[in-house]
Amino acid sequence: MAASPRICGPAVPTAGSHAVQRPLGLDEVQITGGPLGRWQQTNRTASIPLGLRQVEQGGSVPNLRLAAGEGKGGFRGYRFQDSDLYKQLEAVAWEHARQPDPGYEAFLTASAELLARAQRPDGYLNSHYQLVKPDLIYAELEYSHEMYCAGHLLQAAVAAARAGAAPLLPAVARRLADHLVAVFLDGGDDGLDGHPEVETALVELYRLTGEGSYLALARKLIDNRGRGLIRDVGLGPLYAQDHLPVREADTAVGHAVRQLYLEAGIVDVYLETGDRSLLDCSVRRWEDLVATKTYLTGGHGSRHDGEAFGERYELPPDRAYNESCAAIASLHWNWRLLLATGDGRYADLFERTLYNAFAAATSTDGLRFFYVNPLQRRADYSADRYDGRRREWFDCACCPPNIMRTVASLGHYLATRDEDCLYLHQYAPGTIRSSDVELAVATDYPWDGRVGISVARAPATWRLALRIPAWSRTTTVLVDGTPVPVTPDERGYLVLSNPREHVELRLDLAPRLVFPHPRIDAVRGCAAVERGPLVYCFEQADQSADVDELALIPGTELRVVGMQDLPGVGRTVLIEADARAIHQPSGGLPYGDHPPPASTAVTATAVPYFQWDNRDGGAMRVWLPHPFEGIR
Amino acid sequence: MAASPRICGPAVPTAGSHAVQRPLGLDEVQITGGPLGRWQQTNRTASIPLGLRQVEQGGSVPNLRLAAGEGKGGFRGYRFQDSDLYKQLEAVAWEHARQPDPGYEAFLTASAELLARAQRPDGYLNSHYQLVKPDLIYAELEYSHEMYCAGHLLQAAVAAARAGAAPLLPAVARRLADHLVAVFLDGGDDGLDGHPEVETALVELYRLTGEGSYLALARKLIDNRGRGLIRDVGLGPLYAQDHLPVREADTAVGHAVRQLYLEAGIVDVYLETGDRSLLDCSVRRWEDLVATKTYLTGGHGSRHDGEAFGERYELPPDRAYNESCAAIASLHWNWRLLLATGDGRYADLFERTLYNAFAAATSTDGLRFFYVNPLQRRADYSADRYDGRRREWFDCACCPPNIMRTVASLGHYLATRDEDCLYLHQYAPGTIRSSDVELAVATDYPWDGRVGISVARAPATWRLALRIPAWSRTTTVLVDGTPVPVTPDERGYLVLSNPREHVELRLDLAPRLVFPHPRIDAVRGCAAVERGPLVYCFEQADQSADVDELALIPGTELRVVGMQDLPGVGRTVLIEADARAIHQPSGGLPYGDHPPPASTAVTATAVPYFQWDNRDGGAMRVWLPHPFEGIR
Repeated sequence: MAASPRICGPAVPTAGSHAVQRPLGLDEVQITGGPLGRWQQTNRTASIPLGLRQVEQGGSVPNLRLAAGEGKGGFRGYRFQDSDLYKQLEAVAWEHARQPDPGYEAFLTASAELLARAQRPDGYLNSHYQLVKPDLIYAELEYSHEMYCAGHLLQAAVAAARAGAAPLLPAVARRLADHLVAVFLDGGDDGLDGHPEVETALVELYRLTGEGSYLALARKLIDNRGRGLIRDVGLGPLYAQDHLPVREADTAVGHAVRQLYLEAGIVDVYLETGDRSLLDCSVRRWEDLVATKTYLTGGHGSRHDGEAFGERYELPPDRAYNESCAAIASLHWNWRLLLATGDGRYADLFERTLYNAFAAATSTDGLRFFYVNPLQRRADYSADRYDGRRREWFDCACCPPNIMRTVASLGHYLATRDEDCLYLHQYAPGTIRSSDVELAVATDYPWDGRVGISVARAPATWRLALRIPAWSRTTTVLVDGTPVPVTPDERGYLVLSNPREHVELRLDLAPRLVFPHPRIDAVRGCAAVERGPLVYCFEQADQSADVDELALIPGTELRVVGMQDLPGVGRTVLIEADARAIHQPSGGLPYGDHPPPASTAVTATAVPYFQWDNRDGGAMRVWLPHPFEGIR
Repeated sequence: MAASPRICGPAVPTAGSHAVQRPLGLDEVQITGGPLGRWQQTNRTASIPLGLRQVEQGGSVPNLRLAAGEGKGGFRGYRFQDSDLYKQLEAVAWEHARQPDPGYEAFLTASAELLARAQRPDGYLNSHYQLVKPDLIYAELEYSHEMYCAGHLLQAAVAAARAGAAPLLPAVARRLADHLVAVFLDGGDDGLDGHPEVETALVELYRLTGEGSYLALARKLIDNRGRGLIRDVGLGPLYAQDHLPVREADTAVGHAVRQLYLEAGIVDVYLETGDRSLLDCSVRRWEDLVATKTYLTGGHGSRHDGEAFGERYELPPDRAYNESCAAIASLHWNWRLLLATGDGRYADLFERTLYNAFAAATSTDGLRFFYVNPLQRRADYSADRYDGRRREWFDCACCPPNIMRTVASLGHYLATRDEDCLYLHQYAPGTIRSSDVELAVATDYPWDGRVGISVARAPATWRLALRIPAWSRTTTVLVDGTPVPVTPDERGYLVLSNPREHVELRLDLAPRLVFPHPRIDAVRGCAAVERGPLVYCFEQADQSADVDELALIPGTELRVVGMQDLPGVGRTVLIEADARAIHQPSGGLPYGDHPPPASTAVTATAVPYFQWDNRDGGAMRVWLPHPFEGIR
């Protein structure tokens, strides 16, 4: 029953790959509602139009015009300014695949033509180096981002090709990729970009074109990392993961986005080559990362300094960096690990990251973005740099178009196939059609735990695998009206044989108090609230007392407040907890014997983390003290 | 009985100033032992010789030779490289005052001659701008550090003058100060250095010379701060305290050293002008800072990013920045506040900072230094940048010579006078002679709480004021063998009238468990150990279990282990506590319901924080969990 989809999404292993499951096509999955559907709609109506203005205003398009010998003025923005346009092109391409639009097609075509005019005859293309530093092309790869930018162009071209638009774009991308191959594979140059990204992009271009040298170059770049081939930019070799060869490194270090994009490339090369040592080392780091360096939201990066991972268990909520791009890179990596292994723990983390670390980056209206995604904001925060509140745009605007390309392609990540089984990894209302199977999914997930799956069409013999999230304590499943035992397999999936008409999955959305591992120093003595895949937080706007003075009553009941449309926030479900507001006097050194503070009984009200900062700029906490000793 | 000292130390208000107490001279106080005496000895035999090599090797002296038209090569180091030499000159001058040495005198004289040759005819002197950017002199003050460097030269010159050495140095300094006055006071240029430092230095040069324009310029620079006159270097206006006029700002912000040097200058200008609004605003920020942004060690600066203060109660132990220079700047500020008010709370904080944040910056052997002084180091820390272990030197070497100038002048900060009273603020063995009063102090403080003060000479009517540290819970004082009631005045001093022969002060050195204010999120549920003025820490080298797995038994007894000479560490007193080692399994996301962990009873052993990192590079914690719920 396995036939190829018509429109592939991002990261689609070849038929001969070592993937144990394969993605469905973008045309095979339709999301028709729920938060994911709402994000896609807002992405189309608000975010992408904003992004299209910004690639002009921010300099990406004007820079390329200058490189093409058109227009006047000087280069503007960062040396990686081209990548803003490339990510925007990819977002538009996936959005065009999802819902075709002549305007999108025209933008893709015009951009491809501009890029073709800007591209040097030898295939090299980078407006910053062509305009500003022509003598230093590939000479300062430790911070030039030339391969990083190339990687984003390759990914945009793959997206355009799969969306059936702008055939010139893949041609431009191939010329650039061929130039990279000529220099860094055939030419023997052992240069490495300080910022990984091109590795996964080269594999994708290989998948699109079948050109083996792209895969070979990706493999070389990965094999050579950690051998001191990258000049230190003053931040040490950990910063760019050049401290150890990838097969020897046990833990994620340095700049978080770099590490995570590198991992995606590592798994991609495994998928297409079968080099098991690559999968093994990546899984080893994943296990370490999840156990010791991952935020409750799925976010990554504990330090502003170097936008970096911290030490094991260094997970401060207030100074969490959790760059939005790191959440996206984590989605990429987990998706590839899922395809490589079929293990539901990767889909579990994908879901946690998707609904929390990733979703929180965008405002409800789709017009403002976080670069940094902390789990706590104090009342007296300052917003000198990118922390503080969401912004419409950034000087370094890596995140917003990255978010847009991801939202446009969300349908890609919901389901996979193997020979006779259809796997549902993420739950959203819509339809899933894969050759001889057609399902309609009805749900208000994640607000409601009931997921109804109607089988519109299926062969006589098939299987349906449902991911049972690790957080669902009591799960019920009815097949054609009859309850079945819910015994997930070792991968975390309940596999049903030949369901005929209707499957109802009932996940347990009872809100949960969760506690941190005792080694996480920064949130010792605290608890957080979750419901389903959603992490909650306590925003000042919903409290009768100062957020920073709240402490949960140990073992408090958690009360779900019914669905509402909260002004600014949108459709949401709040949760109430019993708490006390602690009135602790201050003055003098804050160390010594503190007398038991006075406190007042209050109700603390939590809102989903992904919906925070849509009202005022007040304080916010994911973690509240619990219990709080010495309250009287 | 008030006569002027022969050799003044740093920060000596004029006779007509608004100081309520005045310092003794460096020749009036001798420290003969104890940790302070040991630090001074090591400073002389190890640190200063190292510093003298580094001003050659690091580029400071060669750069100035180039500026003088001598030697070959190019400028080396940072744009503020001159200041390394200036701080080294100041250290040598104070050390020469303490214990004259012909080699020191020759170094001071030769350096002054070099500076005179390098100085432009108009008085300007800065090797970086003279050699590298002659067209940009005073044109990029937001990051040029030109006034910062000038300030350090002024301070070195004041020190040399007071030490009676190198009379050419004050002449060079005055020409430079006159140039600053010509441009920024008489010339009407409203430029401000991004890094405050020159303000306090100008006041000191005014004190030395009586030249009122130096004081007037200091006042102008302070009055103009916070008015947007400093171009943003990309870190926002808070970074350089340019967000609000100093009289309006309520809390310390931005780069910690900048804020704290600025405060010292503010109080200095108050002292010499009587502008009470300056003292008031500085005291207001001091109270806020102490209550919400000060580490247990007295350290300041919660963020690596921007070397900056954080938000109120943002005090992570692991990522504490606590730059060594910030501790020194805090000593400067507290000293001036003490002179301005006589309030012992400033001497209390001075002591806490001196014995902990400041003292920890230097290794026992005086040959390695911390730039960053955290309160926790995990086993898997990385030392890519200046965190990690102490280093012999740094590319940006602001801290080591700053430490050296402070240690050399420590005697300055022990005692003050007013008309008929001698105040003892810090306790160390030695002699104190102030015109008609001569005391001999015998003590093994801070290892021992007994301080014996023998009156060798005193007038018929006089008073002796002893600071009773806030941490001493039960204090005993015997005057000429007879116990007296210990009722400190509102400033925290026990004032004795006409003690004749001997005073014995017995401070309470029983070790104490201290707890953080409930608003300090980062160390919630933890306790630390203190004894006298010393903060303790738990180093891996002294434990039988992993430091990161230790938890104190609630209410544990604290046992003092008698004085010992610990290899590498030196003379010390350890403290033992009852603890448990928690064996918490890891794996999977570190959030959820953690079962009560297994644990083992162990003894946790603490060493004074200022002596940490003198053995291996193992883990260290000041704060340990206490109590640790769910231990079985």
